[in-house]
Amino acid sequence: MVKHVQIEFQTDTHHKMVDITTRVEEALEQTGMADGAALIFVIGSTGALSTIEYEPGLQRDFPELMQRLIPQDLDYRHNQTWGDGNGHSHLRATLLGPSLTVPVVDGKLVLGTWQQIVFLEFDNRPRNRRLLVQFMGETR
Amino acid sequence: MVKHVQIEFQTDTHHKMVDITTRVEEALEQTGMADGAALIFVIGSTGALSTIEYEPGLQRDFPELMQRLIPQDLDYRHNQTWGDGNGHSHLRATLLGPSLTVPVVDGKLVLGTWQQIVFLEFDNRPRNRRLLVQFMGETR
Amino acid sequence: MVKHVQIEFQTDTHHKMVDITTRVEEALEQTGMADGAALIFVIGSTGALSTIEYEPGLQRDFPELMQRLIPQDLDYRHNQTWGDGNGHSHLRATLLGPSLTVPVVDGKLVLGTWQQIVFLEFDNRPRNRRLLVQFMGETR
Repeated sequence: MVKHVQIEFQTDTHHKMVDITTRVEEALEQTGMADGAALIFVIGSTGALSTIEYEPGLQRDFPELMQRLIPQDLDYRHNQTWGDGNGHSHLRATLLGPSLTVPVVDGKLVLGTWQQIVFLEFDNRPRNRRLLVQFMGETR
Repeated sequence: MVKHVQIEFQTDTHHKMVDITTRVEEALEQTGMADGAALIFVIGSTGALSTIEYEPGLQRDFPELMQRLIPQDLDYRHNQTWGDGNGHSHLRATLLGPSLTVPVVDGKLVLGTWQQIVFLEFDNRPRNRRLLVQFMGETR
Repeated sequence: MVKHVQIEFQTDTHHKMVDITTRVEEALEQTGMADGAALIFVIGSTGALSTIEYEPGLQRDFPELMQRLIPQDLDYRHNQTWGDGNGHSHLRATLLGPSLTVPVVDGKLVLGTWQQIVFLEFDNRPRNRRLLVQFMGETR
């Protein structure tokens, strides 16, 4: 079986991460898939996906890391051309990557106890975000 | 259905990115796949894949970012052993990763309007590059 | 066909990489899969996967790169809360990512000659590690 689900949400502050684990689990249950994989993909070029222990400390440590590695206020050529000031957002998104694939076994996402799936908002303004989740595998 | 296509191209200057979106779309059309995923994989250890808004500003910003994070001229142990001066290329490739999976819905790659699939050439000399694209899903 | 295999191993020193290519190849042979993909996934939030030329120089260059980009001894909020001193481990794991998908053609992993699959141990103590490999594709 191959079945896709779209997940949409609003991000209200930039450089935040959003725990989407429950949303992906709910989508998985709808499909009735038993074994396979969930391919999660960011439609857009200023957000990314990964996993993290979703706790308040790391929710602040990770954006600070991004600011150290790819500062918001450097003179990026993208900003000179487009004037939207989000050159750093694009670079962070390319570094982290738009896709994440999580295995599914016995109808459940395979994740560690302290491992959540997060959408990383890198843009400098609130966005309406769309993710596509492609479920591929065998039904029960 | 499972079907693979090889994509080959020459890179003429190092540290450049190559927009391969059209090549992947053409390969997808050949397969007749309607819904599933395109797994794109770099065969080799000095190149990587991601998505980006492929415009002239970011085409220069991204290599500059790589040079800031993983400078070419540090004294890497890889260079001491092999003498080919591309230690930075290997490290950049490992950080970015060799694989990218893009969902396919209704015979089309699911991508944002300003989101292109790029091959990131990290080696310090022109290379003949081979990517394998594995298409997995359902035919029309 | 969809079939998963668990790979387990002990890591004895932190910040090391482990070549798991042979383990994945052996698991692939057990499945009898001819064409498809091997999705490898880290169950846990302080390790990651990528590919690299697994040679002694890069085995030391890569941990040094991680220490430059995400130093162990910064005052991460995660450490203030949990006291286990591995904030850097979580951040490195999120940056690198928990999943890697490698194509399979004619019963073999598609990899370059000098390209190995590595588990990246980022935690600050020895760990018993579990990876799940989900094989999806067509049998011979």
